[in-house]
Amino acid sequence: MSIHEDARKMKLVAPYLAASASEARDRALSLIGVSLSAHAKDIYTANNIDMAKAEDAGISSSVLKRLKFDEHKLASVLDGLRMLRDLPDPLGHITLHRQLDEGLVLTRLTCPIGVIGVIFEARPDAMIQIASLCIKSGNCAILKGGKETTHTNEVVFNLIKDAAKEAGLPEGCLLQATSHSEIDELLECHEDVDLIIPRGSNAFVRYIMDHTKIPVMGHSDGICHIFVDESADQDMALKIIADAKTQYTAACNAVETLLIHRNIAKEFLPKLYKHLSDNGVTLKGDFQTRGIIPVEAIGKEGCIEYLDLIASVKVVDDINEAIDHINRFGSHHTDSIITSDSESVRVFNQLVDSAGVYHNCSTRFSDGFRYGFGAEVGISTSKIHARGPVGLEGLLTYKYTLEGSGQIVGDYADGKKSFNFKDLD
Amino acid sequence: MSIHEDARKMKLVAPYLAASASEARDRALSLIGVSLSAHAKDIYTANNIDMAKAEDAGISSSVLKRLKFDEHKLASVLDGLRMLRDLPDPLGHITLHRQLDEGLVLTRLTCPIGVIGVIFEARPDAMIQIASLCIKSGNCAILKGGKETTHTNEVVFNLIKDAAKEAGLPEGCLLQATSHSEIDELLECHEDVDLIIPRGSNAFVRYIMDHTKIPVMGHSDGICHIFVDESADQDMALKIIADAKTQYTAACNAVETLLIHRNIAKEFLPKLYKHLSDNGVTLKGDFQTRGIIPVEAIGKEGCIEYLDLIASVKVVDDINEAIDHINRFGSHHTDSIITSDSESVRVFNQLVDSAGVYHNCSTRFSDGFRYGFGAEVGISTSKIHARGPVGLEGLLTYKYTLEGSGQIVGDYADGKKSFNFKDLD
Repeated sequence: MSIHEDARKMKLVAPYLAASASEARDRALSLIGVSLSAHAKDIYTANNIDMAKAEDAGISSSVLKRLKFDEHKLASVLDGLRMLRDLPDPLGHITLHRQLDEGLVLTRLTCPIGVIGVIFEARPDAMIQIASLCIKSGNCAILKGGKETTHTNEVVFNLIKDAAKEAGLPEGCLLQATSHSEIDELLECHEDVDLIIPRGSNAFVRYIMDHTKIPVMGHSDGICHIFVDESADQDMALKIIADAKTQYTAACNAVETLLIHRNIAKEFLPKLYKHLSDNGVTLKGDFQTRGIIPVEAIGKEGCIEYLDLIASVKVVDDINEAIDHINRFGSHHTDSIITSDSESVRVFNQLVDSAGVYHNCSTRFSDGFRYGFGAEVGISTSKIHARGPVGLEGLLTYKYTLEGSGQIVGDYADGKKSFNFKDLD
Repeated sequence: MSIHEDARKMKLVAPYLAASASEARDRALSLIGVSLSAHAKDIYTANNIDMAKAEDAGISSSVLKRLKFDEHKLASVLDGLRMLRDLPDPLGHITLHRQLDEGLVLTRLTCPIGVIGVIFEARPDAMIQIASLCIKSGNCAILKGGKETTHTNEVVFNLIKDAAKEAGLPEGCLLQATSHSEIDELLECHEDVDLIIPRGSNAFVRYIMDHTKIPVMGHSDGICHIFVDESADQDMALKIIADAKTQYTAACNAVETLLIHRNIAKEFLPKLYKHLSDNGVTLKGDFQTRGIIPVEAIGKEGCIEYLDLIASVKVVDDINEAIDHINRFGSHHTDSIITSDSESVRVFNQLVDSAGVYHNCSTRFSDGFRYGFGAEVGISTSKIHARGPVGLEGLLTYKYTLEGSGQIVGDYADGKKSFNFKDLD
């Protein structure tokens, strides 16, 4: 069957999954855990095939680490499933309850978005996390994982699908896309798919955003900044910058540009240069920076996302120049100020237009697990719908129900009746 | 200056408007009211020019009614401004407050979206309502009204702009686009404009959706349904259907398709036929309907949006067929069930995948004013971001602030520290 036909069918299944009992969705999560444990060996065997192919293809050891599915990862996935299962049902929460007039009552309730397409990197644990977030939130999902985990994903997906069925969830509520060409087909299904969540490289996410009419939740660039204010605890700044740059270079929340207050540049830049050199980081500087420390010039393309042990350094006149730079050249992801001045914190928090605005801590905290969301489907730099790390809440919308007893608008338009708004408990 | 340059500048102004005091935004709303009253004659004079041109162009009397700006409309606009001003500030509300670890505190706060482009129909009061919603919510706005109100809009916009400036809001936070070609230019500003809200015909909204990378909030089709269940109070059904079809035919929340339960079709359809004929409505029916009442067949294009005194009628076997029809052929706008059976209401509410799911009342209630939102910028049929009538809340996003004291992610990854989540008041 084609993705088009599958998505069309799934759209009709979606309301039934949305109406499923909380107990059935939670039971599916329990059964997935049981099934993954019981079939651990099958998963490892499939994963070994993927690993061997990846090694043959000369894939780097850091990527291999992500492909690997072992007991350690299984244990962490099982923890995640339990944690998610034990969260309260996110569906059917009343967020507005209002009498419009005597006997005419408006209620706004949370409900699932419907049909979500998620395209994610080659990580077997990602498949499990994403599928379980979709089940808990009552969303149908079309899942497409990275091709390097084809064998592992096939085994894992079938276990998940069977568990969902056994728990009594409607058949056809989860679907796996397996070939790369199916991505383009998925992007065409704007009549049936409500949301696409792409994870992966900038270029890939941008491709998705440019080739579909379906709303896309995610981020392409992650150009995060740290501004070292004149009153900063400089040792703290060094420690935070090294963490934000080196702890996981390939992450979207790693820092890329360092903005240094002019009044401390002469004192701080040499310390920064030494500390980051010791940590294997190469700096590139603007004109003023290069007057103080011996670094290369920032390239013509400006302060970009390096995703590597490289950072741009720029000297700024004051906090306002720092904020303007961040708002203009940043990607509205996560930006941090290091300062001891509470007024600077207030101004920075108010004026920096980013999903995460931090004070005296590393940009690397921008993550659904670290925010205590249990899991995340991704991080959004959009200001529409969810922003920042996206957990269950970002997979919900709402509907309005209006309960009447024969009311018509004509009576209100003619002045025979008038509205009598009253918020109810 | 071009719209591109204006939008680029506006993006840098947006954080300052977002940070503006609630008092300044409320004062701007008061001053707009004062200024509109003081310059009422100038507005009427400009409006007379627009009206004369429109009459010369042979524009229909129903559209002329919308173009007209008189004392009655001024009074209602002033009421709206006062109501909006007196609402609590929507910005800076804390929606999550959580300790991640000792001394590391996450806060989620509501904030404006940023720069919004609104393209709206030729209605002078729309300009005032939209501008005031944007001011109250701290959003910069590029406003483009219908060309038939060019003269009125120019006077009104300048009064609004001057009032915003006098209240101390940042200069350049409101802008008017005046020529039609500027719409295409606006659609290209995806780096600086965060959201487009188009209002107008289906074809127009669809054009906007198809020609921009900027997120679009709105709706194109409005194919609303009324399902008359077998246990319906049939007199109530007739009254509600007549209201939903005839009270304002051109509205997106007018009913277009009537679904009739098979068990009452023979009894109810003749009554429906007579009642709607008396109200000037022409019915088109499916095969079974035409076996009972003498109506034309539904066209090849199916159950469409007529926006006229025409409705499609279809006989369905049961509530499930009605729901499947609504979910498949509707536009997820507003759909109503007429029934006395509470189980039918429960099923309909749960399974109908629309922004508004009604029981025993007219679909025409789907509107920001009637929901008690004070005003609306539009109605959204998207499930991403705002859904249904959109007031202030739909113009907001949020940001996360994280307040630390030197925390780095490395310590948590290495196991030196562990998270200690605790929700704070």
